[in-house]
This record gives sequence, structure tokens and C-alpha cells, in this order.
Amino acid sequence: MPDSFAPTDRTRVVREPQRGVYDREEIYKILDEGMVCHVGFALEGQPYVMPTLYGRIGDAIYFHGSAASRMLRGLSGGASVCLTVTLTDGIVVARSIFNHSMNYRSVLALGKATIVDEPSEKLEALRAFSEKILPGRWEDARKPNAQELKATSILRLPLTEVSAKVRTGPPHDDAPDMPLPIWAGVIPLRMVADAPIREADCSPEIPVPSYVAQYRR
Amino acid sequence: MPDSFAPTDRTRVVREPQRGVYDREEIYKILDEGMVCHVGFALEGQPYVMPTLYGRIGDAIYFHGSAASRMLRGLSGGASVCLTVTLTDGIVVARSIFNHSMNYRSVLALGKATIVDEPSEKLEALRAFSEKILPGRWEDARKPNAQELKATSILRLPLTEVSAKVRTGPPHDDAPDMPLPIWAGVIPLRMVADAPIREADCSPEIPVPSYVAQYRR
Repeated sequence: MPDSFAPTDRTRVVREPQRGVYDREEIYKILDEGMVCHVGFALEGQPYVMPTLYGRIGDAIYFHGSAASRMLRGLSGGASVCLTVTLTDGIVVARSIFNHSMNYRSVLALGKATIVDEPSEKLEALRAFSEKILPGRWEDARKPNAQELKATSILRLPLTEVSAKVRTGPPHDDAPDMPLPIWAGVIPLRMVADAPIREADCSPEIPVPSYVAQYRR
Repeated sequence: MPDSFAPTDRTRVVREPQRGVYDREEIYKILDEGMVCHVGFALEGQPYVMPTLYGRIGDAIYFHGSAASRMLRGLSGGASVCLTVTLTDGIVVARSIFNHSMNYRSVLALGKATIVDEPSEKLEALRAFSEKILPGRWEDARKPNAQELKATSILRLPLTEVSAKVRTGPPHDDAPDMPLPIWAGVIPLRMVADAPIREADCSPEIPVPSYVAQYRR
């Protein structure tokens, strides 16, 4: 498998091309770090963008299709979608408003999503969701039964037409602004977990699992 | 102005309808808390979803159109878009895999986005972005000049067809799973800021502004 995704006219980063990333491992890393994706599809000319859980298995993205699947089921041969994952890493504080920015990493994947009907593939997709959001949980929890698998709607998008856009580092002000007595720099951002909240009916004798107590993204 | 957005066939929350929110103030609050939106639009049948900065002024959303504007400029009368904002508030840890979920708040706004050409409206939109991401910064920073305003691409989406979907609270397991000796609860998530990083050329004599030093979302 090539180390990079070949950019197409639809995925090549045109604006700020130096931010374009096509390296397969770097794109996988962003996808694996994200928690929620935004899936876009069009129906009768109207685009919809739905947040949903997802997981990656090799070169396929599986995503929860609950919000979209009824609408997409009618489309034979798969539905054209765009799946986008965005991580916000920091606020870029420049001397000029114009050069303010965000540090971020985002992946855009285009292609046709198809509905997964095979129960064992659904199960693997659910395991991928679970291990991605909360590693260790899958082994502890009560696994899906046949009826639950049937009620779960999963879509698969092969990763073929993919690119990422990444901004890192400090602000870039224009030369005439550099001497201005204005603070400039970056405010790093990250997602943290607060202390877990035990469900009311969960016996205090059941210890908090380490993957919950020590959760971090 | 009515207190709620009237749901349409396109915005009514059908799956998990108890999660549907149409209240104007609650929707504004989600929009004002979010930092990045995902804008969906379709070109030649292919949907695209782009992350971008945005701000709200009254009943209009302004968003940075850099990635989309060249593509959208050709569409007379505005381009059909879907603008989605998602906040992830927690991981819902159920006894069964099937009942795992996320606590989240998301807003979906449908409509036609038009390009903002008027410089004073652009300036107000930029101020809204700035005050949203980093309140207090606008007054300190060097303001946009005419050339920068011209180079900035802003789109406006009126808030007319809008709904939100909100999940809060503990997991809901099925009755037969309740006695299982499996921990259940919620892991709250939030975005935090780490210590700001001064840009290399920014004199240490310039103090860190309080809105940077004490930044929190």
C-alpha cells in the first residue's frame, strides 16, 4: 500500500497548500485521535452534516449511521459522502486580527458509503468504536446480541480519496506589525476528563475501572 | 421573534425525538459556546464538509469562507448549506455496549449562504469571531485594514431552519442488565487551555494579557 494518498482535484489542499498532508500514517493518526466525525451527504440538493461516532479498521472508516441510514438506504450503489474529522489544538494569537488563526488537524475523506449488513462486520465496527472512545471497555461490557446488532446501523467508507490539513506553531505576523507592543503566541487547547460520575443504581462496591478512572485523550 | 424555531421536515429530530431542542435561547447558547463549525455544501453531487470559524450576530451566522468561497461564488442566489456545531460533553458508559453513548449538544442549521461584500458587515463578523474565540482580544489587536478586509472571505447564513439535538445525563441500560457487576456512569469531558506559549519575537516585557493567561472555555 502506498505511503501516501494521491491527491485529487477534490482533495488537494489549494488554499494554504503548505498545510496539506497526504501521508497515510499521519492521516490515520488524526483519524484515530478524533472522537466524533461530521458526515456530509446531500438529499434533493440539500446538504446535511451530522456528527457521529466512528472507528477505523485498516483502510475503512465505519460510522454510526443512525441519523443518516434511513435516508441513505434508498441510494443504490452507495451514497456520496464527505467524512470530516477535526481536532482543535490551539488558538493562534497574532498581533493583527487578520493573522489570528487556529492550530488544528483535520481530515477530509470523500467516497461512497455503503450500509454494513453482515453481523460479524458490524460487531468488529462496534468494537472499533468502543476501543477508540474508551480503550479497555469492550472486554468488560455486555457484548451486543443478535437483536442489538440488527438494530444498529453502521456505514462503511473506504479510505481512498483523502487528505488532511494541519496548522501548527506560532502566529505569523506581517513585518510592519512585529514591533507593536502587543502580546503574541499560542494558547494550547486539549480535551480533558473530569472525575467520573457513577450511575445512581451502580453499586458503590463495583470499583471504578482503571480505564475510566485514569481516562485521558 | 418567536421563542422557538419551528421544526420542518428537514430539521425535526426523528430518531430519539426527546433529544430534539427548538428553543431559540438554548440553540443560541450552543452556537455561542462552540469554537469551530462544520459547513456542508454539495458540488456536482459530491458533498464537502469543511471546518471553519464562525460567529453569531443576532439571527445570522457568519463563517469564514476561505475554503469554500471560491467554489460557492459561482452559485447565484446563495448556496444551500448545512452548518453544524457539535459540543462533546461526556462519554456515557453503560453496562451493555449497545447502550454506550455520548453526551453532546449539536445544532444543525440549513439555508442559503451568501457572500458578504460590504466591508462594515465583514468587520462586524470578524469582531464576532474574535470575541467568540478570545474575548477581549479585539480591543488589543491591530484591526483589519481595507486590504485585509477585502482579502477576507465571509459568508452569512440566516438562522431560520434550525434545530438542536442534546443528550445529557446517565446511561440507560436495559432492565436485565442492571444487576450485572459492571461499572456504569459518565466520564465528563471538557476543553481546557494550557499555559500560553509566547511567540519567539514577542518581547518578554510585554505582559501576558489576562484574557490569555486566564483563558477558559
